[in-house]
Amino acid sequence: MNNSFGNIFKITSFGESHGQGVGIVIDGCPAGVELDEQFIQSELDRRKPGQSRITTQRKEADGFEFLSGVFEGKSTGSPITIFIRNQDQKSKDYDHIKDIYRPSHADFTYQEKYGVRDYRGGGRSSARITAGWVAAGAIAKLILKEIGIKCQAFVSQVGELKLEKNYLELDLSKTESNDVRCPDEVTAKKMFELIDNVRKNRDTVGGVVTGVISGNPVGLGEPVFNKLNATLGFAMLSINAVKGFELGSGFDGVKMRGSDHNDAFENKGSEIGTKTNHSGGVQGGISNGEDIYFNVAFKPVATIMKDQSSVDGEGNAITVKGKGRHDPCVVPRAVPIVEAMSALVMADFYLLAQTNKLRG
Amino acid sequence: MNNSFGNIFKITSFGESHGQGVGIVIDGCPAGVELDEQFIQSELDRRKPGQSRITTQRKEADGFEFLSGVFEGKSTGSPITIFIRNQDQKSKDYDHIKDIYRPSHADFTYQEKYGVRDYRGGGRSSARITAGWVAAGAIAKLILKEIGIKCQAFVSQVGELKLEKNYLELDLSKTESNDVRCPDEVTAKKMFELIDNVRKNRDTVGGVVTGVISGNPVGLGEPVFNKLNATLGFAMLSINAVKGFELGSGFDGVKMRGSDHNDAFENKGSEIGTKTNHSGGVQGGISNGEDIYFNVAFKPVATIMKDQSSVDGEGNAITVKGKGRHDPCVVPRAVPIVEAMSALVMADFYLLAQTNKLRG
Amino acid sequence: MNNSFGNIFKITSFGESHGQGVGIVIDGCPAGVELDEQFIQSELDRRKPGQSRITTQRKEADGFEFLSGVFEGKSTGSPITIFIRNQDQKSKDYDHIKDIYRPSHADFTYQEKYGVRDYRGGGRSSARITAGWVAAGAIAKLILKEIGIKCQAFVSQVGELKLEKNYLELDLSKTESNDVRCPDEVTAKKMFELIDNVRKNRDTVGGVVTGVISGNPVGLGEPVFNKLNATLGFAMLSINAVKGFELGSGFDGVKMRGSDHNDAFENKGSEIGTKTNHSGGVQGGISNGEDIYFNVAFKPVATIMKDQSSVDGEGNAITVKGKGRHDPCVVPRAVPIVEAMSALVMADFYLLAQTNKLRG
Amino acid sequence: MNNSFGNIFKITSFGESHGQGVGIVIDGCPAGVELDEQFIQSELDRRKPGQSRITTQRKEADGFEFLSGVFEGKSTGSPITIFIRNQDQKSKDYDHIKDIYRPSHADFTYQEKYGVRDYRGGGRSSARITAGWVAAGAIAKLILKEIGIKCQAFVSQVGELKLEKNYLELDLSKTESNDVRCPDEVTAKKMFELIDNVRKNRDTVGGVVTGVISGNPVGLGEPVFNKLNATLGFAMLSINAVKGFELGSGFDGVKMRGSDHNDAFENKGSEIGTKTNHSGGVQGGISNGEDIYFNVAFKPVATIMKDQSSVDGEGNAITVKGKGRHDPCVVPRAVPIVEAMSALVMADFYLLAQTNKLRG
Repeated sequence: MNNSFGNIFKITSFGESHGQGVGIVIDGCPAGVELDEQFIQSELDRRKPGQSRITTQRKEADGFEFLSGVFEGKSTGSPITIFIRNQDQKSKDYDHIKDIYRPSHADFTYQEKYGVRDYRGGGRSSARITAGWVAAGAIAKLILKEIGIKCQAFVSQVGELKLEKNYLELDLSKTESNDVRCPDEVTAKKMFELIDNVRKNRDTVGGVVTGVISGNPVGLGEPVFNKLNATLGFAMLSINAVKGFELGSGFDGVKMRGSDHNDAFENKGSEIGTKTNHSGGVQGGISNGEDIYFNVAFKPVATIMKDQSSVDGEGNAITVKGKGRHDPCVVPRAVPIVEAMSALVMADFYLLAQTNKLRG
Repeated sequence: MNNSFGNIFKITSFGESHGQGVGIVIDGCPAGVELDEQFIQSELDRRKPGQSRITTQRKEADGFEFLSGVFEGKSTGSPITIFIRNQDQKSKDYDHIKDIYRPSHADFTYQEKYGVRDYRGGGRSSARITAGWVAAGAIAKLILKEIGIKCQAFVSQVGELKLEKNYLELDLSKTESNDVRCPDEVTAKKMFELIDNVRKNRDTVGGVVTGVISGNPVGLGEPVFNKLNATLGFAMLSINAVKGFELGSGFDGVKMRGSDHNDAFENKGSEIGTKTNHSGGVQGGISNGEDIYFNVAFKPVATIMKDQSSVDGEGNAITVKGKGRHDPCVVPRAVPIVEAMSALVMADFYLLAQTNKLRG
Repeated sequence: MNNSFGNIFKITSFGESHGQGVGIVIDGCPAGVELDEQFIQSELDRRKPGQSRITTQRKEADGFEFLSGVFEGKSTGSPITIFIRNQDQKSKDYDHIKDIYRPSHADFTYQEKYGVRDYRGGGRSSARITAGWVAAGAIAKLILKEIGIKCQAFVSQVGELKLEKNYLELDLSKTESNDVRCPDEVTAKKMFELIDNVRKNRDTVGGVVTGVISGNPVGLGEPVFNKLNATLGFAMLSINAVKGFELGSGFDGVKMRGSDHNDAFENKGSEIGTKTNHSGGVQGGISNGEDIYFNVAFKPVATIMKDQSSVDGEGNAITVKGKGRHDPCVVPRAVPIVEAMSALVMADFYLLAQTNKLRG
Repeated sequence: MNNSFGNIFKITSFGESHGQGVGIVIDGCPAGVELDEQFIQSELDRRKPGQSRITTQRKEADGFEFLSGVFEGKSTGSPITIFIRNQDQKSKDYDHIKDIYRPSHADFTYQEKYGVRDYRGGGRSSARITAGWVAAGAIAKLILKEIGIKCQAFVSQVGELKLEKNYLELDLSKTESNDVRCPDEVTAKKMFELIDNVRKNRDTVGGVVTGVISGNPVGLGEPVFNKLNATLGFAMLSINAVKGFELGSGFDGVKMRGSDHNDAFENKGSEIGTKTNHSGGVQGGISNGEDIYFNVAFKPVATIMKDQSSVDGEGNAITVKGKGRHDPCVVPRAVPIVEAMSALVMADFYLLAQTNKLRG
């Protein structure tokens, strides 16, 4: 159960950073979906390493292969398996961490939990495994496209640099126009410089990715232990390095009064909507048709190019050398991951909602 | 699946605000746990309405009954069912909302999703159902006690009033000494006044509850789609009115550099620990033995004593009258709910961890 | 997970033979189903004890109460909880088995597994808990009625007395016309006599219940690990005392040649069907539209009125006295249970099938 | 959910007969298990086609590759993915069935359910996918070996030829000594001749596989909806062509009286056991320590070398030609599949049982 996500459109993740590769099994994809390979690859390309000098220099084409579930370009209702073979595994780079615990990595906890660990590049704890999630998310996006739901994301903060506009004031189509994936070009430039400086300083920095889901029907999400907001939060907190999630008014909303925060309903002609959207498109755990928007906080990447003090497996004090390839800031490459996870959530809830009412 | 939570220690929630009552089935409680009824009741008492003038005036004893699973005071390994009968259901109070959609309530989304709804007091969407969660959480606490894990929570913010101390600077045993459940008495007093003023103004205000889990073994939580942090987030975001969750350094951590944020390991004699704890006790989704701490953001309660504009079921503009009983600020009563949910998460992961290694 | 059954229409069973009562939570019942209480009670009445001299003499009205999920007579999409309070609990009858293990009962395995057991009347292992299943099955039947699916069952064997007609040669509407629930009156009479003789001899005897599901659409059941036949088998083998399950040609089919066993397709005008039905209405785990029929083997009831040798908790040889109330043959009362379980399977697969194809 | 099996040791099956290959993901294998590749391959070899003239002539080496989860020969607690590439896919052999429905195959039900199907060699409905199950079962066997549980199976019936000895009268180590996998050599020879005659007659025949699980601890299996017997039945009924399952006394047991059928407990010195074993090692859904034994009925293979009447996708009457490669009788190759599925059930329940009691 621990490597699966979803109720109906259920993914099972597998693979390691420096093993054979990483992959995903999708169980529950409806039959007949046209699996646009070019689109899936383009989504993987947005996540892949080596895109610019502010991302890790590991070289991976991240080409994928369908191992099952596809016939004549369409889903068949059988499990779809996607496999992405590792290529640039410099496993030797990791011999020096075989017996040591890198600060704020998962080395210690994996070793203690399992008594054995694949230490090469973080093994199973590497963010490389999100390649499989992005591939599955691309298929979820193809399904959502038919319903009119769109999942977008962008970088809204890097370190102390916060984009002081909300998503409605931005042109999200510009997100891909720069390496930072911030749709505001002036801020993007500043963010790039900040990340580049951090990189030169052999350090790393955190950031925030904002997600926006639009074109939502009313009624997705289940009210008690499968709330749309809770499942989105779970999905985002499953991404490596995420430390926080807020939806709609979020942490700032706690300062407000109910009379200001409440979203008054109004008749928008063809449908009932709300005047404001502090709820972030979810009420009682269920989509109300308004945009769903949320923030995801990423901590600074734990791998830094500086020496750090730590202990080895026997508890002896040691120094961890700054070595290996890594991202100085994870948020630019996290944008497609956030989109993928939100698409997985929405596609799953869309399918699940088919069971709420009887059909003749 | 939508009303169940947990993998091994699995709860299924049922009931409505103004129906027969609310309850919980616990499937997977190990056999032989002494079910201390007095303790379970004391936890329910912390959540129950009518505790002070800053909570709702609904009168509910919230006495509970075991319907199954208990024999001679002990769990038997069979499902434990706890039922809390409703008493003070003023259902007539809700006739006026039968056909209208209250702003920022779940009236509209439930009606659209299901085509039918129990509108009395919010029905299934009422926070009253968390009484069952608190009862189950009390049993989880009894299990955790044997392992030495302690789940605590307290109010750290009300509206703009933020407690400027972290949990290590506080004496958490004082949390229950005041009606706000803030362990800092000076701040608690200010918070009480703020809530009372908001109440007099017929309005509501949001707040933050901080959770602290201590005495943790290393190795709880599963690494990929069952991360301890993600599951805690999911649990908290399942509580009514929650809009945000952050663990460890959270949203503030994004501003830091990796070299400051990383938690250096050190040999603490009997065990390996970390010098700082920006990770919040979780690395790679797994507990590292340090304290787990997190913040939960609650929006202002949607029920206010003021008139609001809205629409009815046919989309006609109407005015919602300020009527009914409610909490001006939900966080004081949310403290035991946050504790209960975190206890459920920890007990579940503790049991699940028994399956990670082979035993002879 | 161990007390729940179903994927979408998911039931969670709770309760014990001599505790407060037995019950069921149904999570995933679509909203808007008219919950005909009279029908639910009539199904419970078919299962309840004390129906004739060939059933146990325990007196239970088996009246039920909705604890949640119902509003103005309809399902709301929230969990439906049904509770049946125990009345005629002669718990003292069971003091003599507190420390002993009755042969072929679950006393020994429960005690060893859990270290504690509710020994009164078998506690959780009592077939009394199937009352909750029958109530849930009644609701499943109400759903299936709208689709045109009918779940029936009848007694086809008692001891060595086997009904030598297949279901197509019988008038299933006569099943309820006698206490044995065999639709062939001549055989029913013989079966009654056999059971009554066994009873007088203070012994018990086994039997077979045949289930028939008609009016099936094509496409229910999932092909690999959720096959319709496998799930039906699982459901039936979950009923107390069941030792075997066969579908379609079953164990006799192994003697056939493929050329005789294969069911040729033919065009039946409005639909494609098969000339023969050795497949029992399921091919590749999926319903093909033909009738589904199957046999369920029940062993003789373990409680007999004779002295038996056994051991106590310390392993000392003892004699178990023939005491208590019980059924001399379980199959007459098992008929509504088999029907209920098959209705639960079919309703669940019907709802699940809504997610196999995309809808606009 | 439809391609996964197990609670803790959970397998997800993928792949098709004539696609890239077939595979399995195992999520929940404890860390530190030595994954003996030679043993896994030897189990696959027992299932692979082309073993003798009474099995299909398709040539597949069924060599496997670990795609994930293994490090230095051991399980790491991460998902283990095993992939078996298809080699001898004569897909062109299947062009003639593209638009027709073969009798008693899954062509019709898949087409109706999904609107699209991979018709090549049965696609997903091919028994070829059980190669993945056998590989996973081999790992389950490696785990069970450490506990002392042994899962064996053998052919006990082919057509009308029934082995008239029970498993205690046989030397199960002789099962692999002949192509039929019947441990009684005289009967095995007769069975071989029967199958070979059926084959020459271009027909097929059914059979029975008997499974025996020995070395069982007391306490495996969960009492209500996860009974050991029900889960074994579900596992067996998930195997292609299975139409029946019976455990212990099974269908024959219905003829017995309770006084004969009951298994008296006795003190066997080091443990409590039973004098007889009509229960088949399971009481109340839980293992009692005695041998578990059961029969699995396989129908005759649907693919025959004779012409058959059927319909095409538009419902036109057509003739299906006898073509393709197939097994004249499936039971010899089904033996390792039955063993694999029973090993998966036992390993899963063993791990799950770790959560029933609290450990300090």
